[in-house]
Amino acid sequence: MRKLSLLLIFNSLLITAQTPDEQKLKDIYDQSLTNSQSYSWLDHLSNKIGARLSGSANAQKAIEYTKAELDKLGLDRVYLQEVMVPHWVRGEKESAYIEINKKKIPVPICALGMSVATPEKGILAEVVEVQSIKELEILGVEKIKGRIVFFNRPMNNALVEPMEAYRDAGDQRGKGPREASKYGAVGVIVRSLTLRLDDFPHTGGTWYGDIPAAQHIPAAAISTNGAALLSKSLKTNPNLKFFFKQSCKKLDDVLSYNVIGEITGSEHPEQIMVVGGHLDSWDLGDGAQDDGAGVVQSMEVLRIFKLLGYKPKHTIRAVLFINEENGVRGGDAYAAVAQSSNENHIFAMESDSGGFTPRGFTIEGDEADVARIQRWKPLFEPYMLHLFAKGHSGTDVEPIKSSKIIKVGLKPDTQRYFDHHHAATDTFDAVNKRELELGAAAMTSLMYLVDQYGID
Amino acid sequence: MRKLSLLLIFNSLLITAQTPDEQKLKDIYDQSLTNSQSYSWLDHLSNKIGARLSGSANAQKAIEYTKAELDKLGLDRVYLQEVMVPHWVRGEKESAYIEINKKKIPVPICALGMSVATPEKGILAEVVEVQSIKELEILGVEKIKGRIVFFNRPMNNALVEPMEAYRDAGDQRGKGPREASKYGAVGVIVRSLTLRLDDFPHTGGTWYGDIPAAQHIPAAAISTNGAALLSKSLKTNPNLKFFFKQSCKKLDDVLSYNVIGEITGSEHPEQIMVVGGHLDSWDLGDGAQDDGAGVVQSMEVLRIFKLLGYKPKHTIRAVLFINEENGVRGGDAYAAVAQSSNENHIFAMESDSGGFTPRGFTIEGDEADVARIQRWKPLFEPYMLHLFAKGHSGTDVEPIKSSKIIKVGLKPDTQRYFDHHHAATDTFDAVNKRELELGAAAMTSLMYLVDQYGID
Repeated sequence: MRKLSLLLIFNSLLITAQTPDEQKLKDIYDQSLTNSQSYSWLDHLSNKIGARLSGSANAQKAIEYTKAELDKLGLDRVYLQEVMVPHWVRGEKESAYIEINKKKIPVPICALGMSVATPEKGILAEVVEVQSIKELEILGVEKIKGRIVFFNRPMNNALVEPMEAYRDAGDQRGKGPREASKYGAVGVIVRSLTLRLDDFPHTGGTWYGDIPAAQHIPAAAISTNGAALLSKSLKTNPNLKFFFKQSCKKLDDVLSYNVIGEITGSEHPEQIMVVGGHLDSWDLGDGAQDDGAGVVQSMEVLRIFKLLGYKPKHTIRAVLFINEENGVRGGDAYAAVAQSSNENHIFAMESDSGGFTPRGFTIEGDEADVARIQRWKPLFEPYMLHLFAKGHSGTDVEPIKSSKIIKVGLKPDTQRYFDHHHAATDTFDAVNKRELELGAAAMTSLMYLVDQYGID
Repeated sequence: MRKLSLLLIFNSLLITAQTPDEQKLKDIYDQSLTNSQSYSWLDHLSNKIGARLSGSANAQKAIEYTKAELDKLGLDRVYLQEVMVPHWVRGEKESAYIEINKKKIPVPICALGMSVATPEKGILAEVVEVQSIKELEILGVEKIKGRIVFFNRPMNNALVEPMEAYRDAGDQRGKGPREASKYGAVGVIVRSLTLRLDDFPHTGGTWYGDIPAAQHIPAAAISTNGAALLSKSLKTNPNLKFFFKQSCKKLDDVLSYNVIGEITGSEHPEQIMVVGGHLDSWDLGDGAQDDGAGVVQSMEVLRIFKLLGYKPKHTIRAVLFINEENGVRGGDAYAAVAQSSNENHIFAMESDSGGFTPRGFTIEGDEADVARIQRWKPLFEPYMLHLFAKGHSGTDVEPIKSSKIIKVGLKPDTQRYFDHHHAATDTFDAVNKRELELGAAAMTSLMYLVDQYGID
């Protein structure tokens, strides 16, 4: 592409602000794209601190770092909110192989978050492959007992929206081990939740629910290439054995914190608007996309308001939640304090789908709530945001209860998200500076509009 | 992001095809996302062949490879179209440094495409920094003669659309050297056309126009970090010297080819619809984004039609143009043959903005033409395409003349494009498989609709 001279211009992209709101959005975008701090904050969180699993020393460093950075912004209040969080540790690097006629073929795995360890010597057992939890029932105890259950339903590449494909395949990881245990399985291997074929296992939480501790069986994710190999091998060698070994464990809960920064409202200080992401991350990458991006974008909202000298009518809080990945204790604690203090939340926004080019917002509420947010859609057209649809907001803001509240999620382009999500590939270099900044600008713009006009 | 259970669903994204057109687009997208060949073609073009500068051995390999691959698709006609192309070679790796008080600070540069070499010993001269070609006139011969002109106007990060920022800054590269030469400059250094601050120089064509050969002065791009350093150094040391050395040269023109694959129309074989990208690339990366992506997407359009057993009414041609980057000889030759053969082209589409998530199409034509394409916008909504605006189509299809023709360009998300464009960072790993495939699906879908309904 070399064309310079005759490029016709998108009329819609020549942004000429006319109304005060158009001007304010332009100011917000200008600052976000030319004078941002989000990317350098993310660089520090990712490269100087790194993975931030709840209860870890790194999580504590991230809490201290983001609080110190918020302290520099001249906000009205910056504080930590105590939260007891689970403390799961991965232990030694896991190992796994397929054993066919004494030949051992190594495959990449990682323990699922919150899983128990295997016995110290590992587990060696025959494998039964299934595509769904429902299939367990059909196979029954007879075919499952003493075996490793291998959940191998791929994320569906035909779905245009990767989040849908994640939702469709995710039950295998979240409750597959719990369900397989009921039929006497000795372990569970889950195909990694990604749309790519590669060699990176993707972790993520699994939940034993209320089954007795003695029935908690070890569970690991296998890379998609590994899953393909295992599945192919089973077709010709149904009695092959699979070996895996992991030493992860759950330690005692640890005192941790949500980090909160606040600009007090000038007209309605008692009405609170939240913007947030989560500080914790899985431990395999550095958590830049999930959810360092949402953290620094939320901080940037406050920073841009201060930069522009904007004095919000409502109280604006950036909340950097702890423990989204394996407990949501931060989200629950925030909501509990809000409830016990009789706080009145009117709006909550979360960014937890990666720092990619923003496409719009998902709006959680009734049709009237969706319409309230959609009325601002034309203001976002020059910035190429176009999706304003009903949808999930965010896991951390979900617990917040108020008599009248609208919750939204930033909706970025997620085509690349599951290349990185919960894997060693979730690293800073996978985040594009402008895409991250455009997300922060979109979030700040919507916070501004809700602050100006409320949600009624 | 761990949320699985309560994800509400985008209503708009649940694709339930009802009309035949909706069903056809769904079929096209299904094939594109689950059964594509574009990514593996691109892997070969990028990693097995590599950079494909016009006239190079690699360009010839790419011609042979893509023709052979088109031959496998069972098309009605696959052929090469002769084109004489310029043959510019970079020569040895360039070198450059800033000299301040005998201290030499190396900086990364690369010759601009079509530039002449420096003398064998290089050029060492004082530097005059300008922000625009207009500024040359103000400075005049007195301040420019014998010096190196340093064009340092950055691409404007405040613009939401990077293509606009490229257009705004690009004259410095395209005609800066020619204009500076008129004032007696001995060389030109241009700030790389990228929105990032990094160490990669970005090449691209420069054009001496009709000034005498003796006045062709050597021109190079400097990395943005290098440009920042040079500019800063000039503020404290206005008499510093800059050295650069390059041995690039223009050899004799070479016989090369456009590669053309065709499905003959069943109802209007004489009415031709073109879809294309360009086979040549700059020589620093492997040309995956610019424009390997457009090449394989264009091939995929024909492949998907064949896969679906779709028999187009009009003749559909994929044209893989040679020499977009430094001459547009392929585009000109194609148009010349079309004209001399009295061919009737009704539609032409180009993909030459990278293989990123598609956002829509830019439409070149009058208002009525734009409206003709826009009427299909609702069909693309489930696939998250939303931009259907007047704009440039593509450099290669621009020369095509016909009594009645609409030209469009695929419009992807270009936030990352200039991280890679014309630089060593334009490599296969910067292309995401799904984003590439979504582009091919969008292109195939629009080709289908135009084929079904024509452009009247």
